[in-house]
This record gives sequence, structure tokens and C-alpha cells, in this order.
Amino acid sequence: MKVAFQGELGAYSESAVYSFFGPSAEVKPYKSFAEVFESVKTGDVKNGVVPIENSIEGSVNRTYDLFLEYDLKVCGEIILRISHCLIAHRDTKLDQIKTVYSHPQALAQCRKFLEQLNIEAISTFDTAGSVKMIKEEKLMDAAAIASERAAEIYNMTILAREIEDIKNNSTRFFVLNKQDSPYSGEDKTSIIFAAKSIPGALYQVLKEFADRNINLTKIESRPTKSTPWEYHFYLDFEGHRTEKQCQDALESIKDKTIFVKILGSYKAANKPNFNL
Amino acid sequence: MKVAFQGELGAYSESAVYSFFGPSAEVKPYKSFAEVFESVKTGDVKNGVVPIENSIEGSVNRTYDLFLEYDLKVCGEIILRISHCLIAHRDTKLDQIKTVYSHPQALAQCRKFLEQLNIEAISTFDTAGSVKMIKEEKLMDAAAIASERAAEIYNMTILAREIEDIKNNSTRFFVLNKQDSPYSGEDKTSIIFAAKSIPGALYQVLKEFADRNINLTKIESRPTKSTPWEYHFYLDFEGHRTEKQCQDALESIKDKTIFVKILGSYKAANKPNFNL
Repeated sequence: MKVAFQGELGAYSESAVYSFFGPSAEVKPYKSFAEVFESVKTGDVKNGVVPIENSIEGSVNRTYDLFLEYDLKVCGEIILRISHCLIAHRDTKLDQIKTVYSHPQALAQCRKFLEQLNIEAISTFDTAGSVKMIKEEKLMDAAAIASERAAEIYNMTILAREIEDIKNNSTRFFVLNKQDSPYSGEDKTSIIFAAKSIPGALYQVLKEFADRNINLTKIESRPTKSTPWEYHFYLDFEGHRTEKQCQDALESIKDKTIFVKILGSYKAANKPNFNL
Repeated sequence: MKVAFQGELGAYSESAVYSFFGPSAEVKPYKSFAEVFESVKTGDVKNGVVPIENSIEGSVNRTYDLFLEYDLKVCGEIILRISHCLIAHRDTKLDQIKTVYSHPQALAQCRKFLEQLNIEAISTFDTAGSVKMIKEEKLMDAAAIASERAAEIYNMTILAREIEDIKNNSTRFFVLNKQDSPYSGEDKTSIIFAAKSIPGALYQVLKEFADRNINLTKIESRPTKSTPWEYHFYLDFEGHRTEKQCQDALESIKDKTIFVKILGSYKAANKPNFNL
């Protein structure tokens, strides 16, 4: 079965697919995150891989919102080190480059490198798509910022590696499926809840986890859209939803929330090593 | 003294300035949020106004990050209803429009309206700047999405009002100053803290507020950038930092956090009425 991701071939999300499913995984690119969710829902693909947060930029809001709209589960977590390359045509030299194309976040992450070279930065919709564009348009005085794999796929050359300003740059992805994963002993669980608007409501929910020594690894708030300044909370904690203390905590927060949606339990990803 | 904001004249941030400082306020536009912070720091302006969160899109991450980089205070809060207009040249009719320009968030918020008209949407850096651009470039078959005020300033016509899909759309702004505000009786306080990486660390901090019946109005997490998957928390609560129970809570969380930065206390904004 194929694995869906958002972006062009060579996108960081595609690399995340291989790091989880192995190098022989069959990938299927989609234009939007919503199409990735939709393709898992309809059964076009069994799994999808979507970014959920970056260690520098923070949460990917669109992905968080889609988990409310779709009834899908998280069955896995991937943490991928992000390292940007400057990519151009084979005959192009570094001092010939006048313009660089990439996603605004990638451009921002390489700001110091670009300032040294004094080249114009132009925003595009994605990293790998920029490599494809400068190839197809035969832009000989331009470069793109993207992954090493994007250079391979489009048969282009890498003029510089690791050009990001902050080296410990990694992105966390969720693996989407119709079901979550069984207990592995090294699990995390993700939930969404809406707290009742009373003083200390969020605290009352967190107390149920703290009282059971369940470690929270992430908390994120997103506006409900229906009522201004009311929030949905997205919580990740250590443990599998079938473990006794997790079951108890999830049961006890039902009375303290407007709703709780369990996105699923999955084996926690290894964190990448940064040898800096 | 002038008030700094980010964007072109006619930006929603400029309207926020008038709603707080009155219609005779002198405004000074800057290109970036960082320049607004810098201008308050250097004393070029006494106050700056920056968006902090939108009721649909969520937090403005860049503003949150700048509060860590700069040692400025929050002395006021503004909540402004956002209502988008479709703006064009005086002789342009609705059925002549082939292209619409605006900031990607404004385009997204008017998606249903644009789909009905079947016109192409093109992303730009800001809303009011798009009005200025179609005026200067004399684009007679184009429109921009921006505020009513942007149409006035650039002497253009409004073809449609309230074109946003979700009507209860408002943005919350902070007023920047070198000092926060005195006690008013209807105050809020904003702080940033880093929780120690131990189970229940966040809970231990929130407990100090809950135990004193201090109502939390917002919690936001942002990556620290220095260490992947460690977060700074941004917390807003009801009360002034000089009130006894707030003083006690702020004192007691010092032992439970790596650092606490008090952004300031300010009079809470009135929430806009939505007559829908």
C-alpha cells in the first residue's frame, strides 16, 4: 500500500516516509494536507505522513486543525533532522547565482547564509518544487534551497550543504491511519480536548495526569473558530491509552472537559543525534 | 508621540492604533514586526501596536518570539473585529474581476466568497499593500481584499463588504511600551516562562494560579530554538501583578521554572459585539 505525503517528490515529508516505512515504501504525493487526510479516509492509501511541529518554527497549525475535521488516528511518530542544501544546475557556479527560490520557512532558516552571498530570496510554495522549477525553466543564474534528495531526484548539483543558521533543526511528523498502534512499552498518546470555561479548568485536566505521574511532552492551544477566545487543547503524554494509569486519567477528564478526542497511541520516535 | 505598527497605511494594525489611542493618534508604519519592537526600544516612538493572536488563525508566532528577544513591556490590549472588503478601481464592476490580491490569511478567510465568483487568488505580503499595488499598477480587472479604511486611503471603491466566511473574526493586539500600566481593577497580566523538564512541571506552575483562584485566559507554547522539543510557555491571567494573590503566584513559580519574564499588566480589552 502507498503512503501519502504533501509536496513534490524530494520534499522533507517524503524523506520522513522512508525513515519510518523503509527505503522500499511507495509514496504518493498530494498538493495539500487536507488531501492527505482525505486519501487515508477514503482508503486510496493506507497511511499518510504529515508534519506536526518543527523545532524552530513551532506547530503546523493546519495539521492540528485537520485532526478535528477528520476522524483519523495517529499510529506513529517520526522525528527527522532537517538540513538544507543550496541546489543549482550542474554548470552553475556559486558566484553566478543572483536569485534563490524556496519555501519562506526554509529561506528564513538560512538567512545568515544568504546575507553573506548577497543574493535575492524569492518565496515559493515548497522546497523540492523550487528545484523542479529552476530545472524546468532552465534558470542558470538561480538556486533553490531543498533537501539532498531533491537534488538527486531532479539530477541537479549541490553547491553547499547544511546552510541553515541553527543546526539543531528537526521536524516531527505523525503517521495517519484508520487505527492507532498496539502497546510497545515506549509509547506516547495524543488527545484533543476543550476545557470548560471556568477558572482553573485546564489545571483540573492536567492534575489528572500529574496525580498519576504521567509525563506531558507537549501542549498546544488552537482557537475553536466557532467562539472567539475559546481554545481546543492538544496534549501529548507518555504511555499507551490501554495502560491502567492512562485509562484512568482519560476516564477522569471526561467530567472536566466539553469533549475529549483520542488521536491514538504510538511508539515514540527516537530523537536525532546532533553532532555539532 | 507617534505609534508604530507593521504594514502599509490602511492595515488592520493601523485601525487597532486608533481604537486604542483615539482618531487623532499619529501613526508610523514599519515593514516588519522586529522594526516595531526596535523603534520602541530606541525611543523613536513611545508605543507600538502588534497583533498577538487571531480568533481563527491562532497565535502570531513571530510576535511571541520577539517578546523574548526584546525587553519591552505590554501596557495595553486591543481586540479588533476584522471585516474584509473587496476593493477595486472606481470604474471596475464585479463581473470584470479576473484576479484578487491579498495576504494569504485574508484570502483563506474569504475562500467561499472567492469560489462563488470563480476568480484567481494571488498571495501578497499584506492586505492594504495590495490595494496600493492595484491602484499604482492600474490593474482594472483586479481587486484586493483589505479593510474599509484601506479603500478610503487609496481612494478606491468597495465592491462587497463582510466577505469573510466566518463572521466572528477578531484579532487581539498588544500595545508595546517601556513600562506596563498601573492597576485599573480590570487587568490582565502576561508572562513567559520555561518549565523544568520533569514530569508535571507545567502542572506545578499552573497549580500556583489555580490554588489562588487566578483565572488563566491563554496558554501558548513556543519552541526554545536552542534545544529541540523544549518549550517556552506564554501565559495570560486575570489580575494585576501588584495584587497580592498575583504577587504570591509569581513569587512561588520562581522555584518551579528555569526563568520567568513578566511582560506586564494592562487593562483588559472589551470584546467586540458580533450582531450576527
